[in-house]
Amino acid sequence: MRRSQRIAAITKALVERPHHVYSLSGFAEQFAAAKSTISEDLNLIRQTFEAMRSGRVETIAGAAGGVRYIPCVSGRKLWQRVDALCRRLEEPQRILPGGFLYLNDLAASPATIAEIGEVFAVRFAPERPQYVTTIETAGIPIALMTAHALNVPLVVARRSSRPTEGSVLTVNYESGSSRRFETMSLSRRDLPAKARVLLMDDFMRAGSTMRGMLNLMNEFDCQVVGKAVLIETLQPEVKQVQDCIALIQLEEVDEENRRLRVKPSHWVESKRDVDELL
Amino acid sequence: MRRSQRIAAITKALVERPHHVYSLSGFAEQFAAAKSTISEDLNLIRQTFEAMRSGRVETIAGAAGGVRYIPCVSGRKLWQRVDALCRRLEEPQRILPGGFLYLNDLAASPATIAEIGEVFAVRFAPERPQYVTTIETAGIPIALMTAHALNVPLVVARRSSRPTEGSVLTVNYESGSSRRFETMSLSRRDLPAKARVLLMDDFMRAGSTMRGMLNLMNEFDCQVVGKAVLIETLQPEVKQVQDCIALIQLEEVDEENRRLRVKPSHWVESKRDVDELL
Repeated sequence: MRRSQRIAAITKALVERPHHVYSLSGFAEQFAAAKSTISEDLNLIRQTFEAMRSGRVETIAGAAGGVRYIPCVSGRKLWQRVDALCRRLEEPQRILPGGFLYLNDLAASPATIAEIGEVFAVRFAPERPQYVTTIETAGIPIALMTAHALNVPLVVARRSSRPTEGSVLTVNYESGSSRRFETMSLSRRDLPAKARVLLMDDFMRAGSTMRGMLNLMNEFDCQVVGKAVLIETLQPEVKQVQDCIALIQLEEVDEENRRLRVKPSHWVESKRDVDELL
Repeated sequence: MRRSQRIAAITKALVERPHHVYSLSGFAEQFAAAKSTISEDLNLIRQTFEAMRSGRVETIAGAAGGVRYIPCVSGRKLWQRVDALCRRLEEPQRILPGGFLYLNDLAASPATIAEIGEVFAVRFAPERPQYVTTIETAGIPIALMTAHALNVPLVVARRSSRPTEGSVLTVNYESGSSRRFETMSLSRRDLPAKARVLLMDDFMRAGSTMRGMLNLMNEFDCQVVGKAVLIETLQPEVKQVQDCIALIQLEEVDEENRRLRVKPSHWVESKRDVDELL
């Protein structure tokens, strides 16, 4: 195989499984090449990704060593992605009776969701989450794509338990919008104790659902290393959870005049002029 | 940029967005290279993927032309993936009270789900589905990864409608296992009439849920071009829907002796010795 062909094959393997550690000797065997040759190939791929500001190729030294692809974006690209999403969210036909927003089409587009998942993976990879946890249903696509970009399992809490789950642990929480008590359940088998968990949802108003997930994680004796939502509302200002990272802030839904205002969150805005990879 | 670097960059772009059509002049501009040079790069990538039996690079001629990556696997690799899944499914600790099977950990692993989604995409790409439709909750990860590999939107029917959906269309169906009538709803906005739809779920016993989705698609005046499930049970033999493609057949769950038997489906078995890309 020629160098350019090895590079195509190795790039495909790396990109298809972010964060997965491939051994250099595995590649060397597969392509019948010396390990030093594979190292040179990887250097070329690393330089290319860096020049394009799209991802890192990281070499891990030692016996258990190898190489892995870590999704990264520049701050500028992050801001552009989120800003483009904001423009789509501002379409007035999204406003539903009661001031709710129609968002299904965003969660429906795999390319969009993959980009959002990559952004969350970039933000939370340093916290080394071992699981991504969400609650059914709307948050699942974003959470799955984030889990994919982090190469960790996805865990989905249910609003009602089913016999296909085995023994479950259930917590109650007061829903902020309906002022009703709701439940969420998770199979005992889904999560081991002490796991490092990233909590995710698509939308946060007062944060009661996120608060419920936090309580559930406490019951599982897990460590929450991050909380993330795609969209948070500006009101109420005081949320039931702290330190939740949102990509988008929903400022206002004016149902009567069919206008809404959304903008990139403070975190995203703070990265706007960063040309380096995050 | 050197050839090997262009090849790394182009391979990354192609693999990250399966079925997305990139224009050759776009690549030529991005890398400040002649279109003929980009064509040669693409030829090298195409040959490499074919030699590795992992995907096609397809050139589309004409004004709206370009190049796209189509996930493909050989029949042999398909069989190996499904057989490995069967071995994991046979673990006796999966058997839950009532003879149900614990499957959450499979849906939890993004790498596994991505492989399954790729297999379904390979099988159904020739039917040119424009949407993948499933019902919450367990089928969502597989359906999303299939939609991602096909580059089409995912549509998720709900068991109960919510105000964030807008106007919905609801159908009733008799659940095979509980003999109860259940409902499924889909927002009017989620699907246009006449769309070509692939129906997916994780598990099928009698097929009543799939039957319900079929009725729902009729109400939307959509055309169902394929039906797929990860696992179907051998019993009952007569299903409520025809022509559903399963990857795995569940032959028996012996709760008392804690034994279960699963095997690749007839379709998967028929591909076992096929070395060519499907």
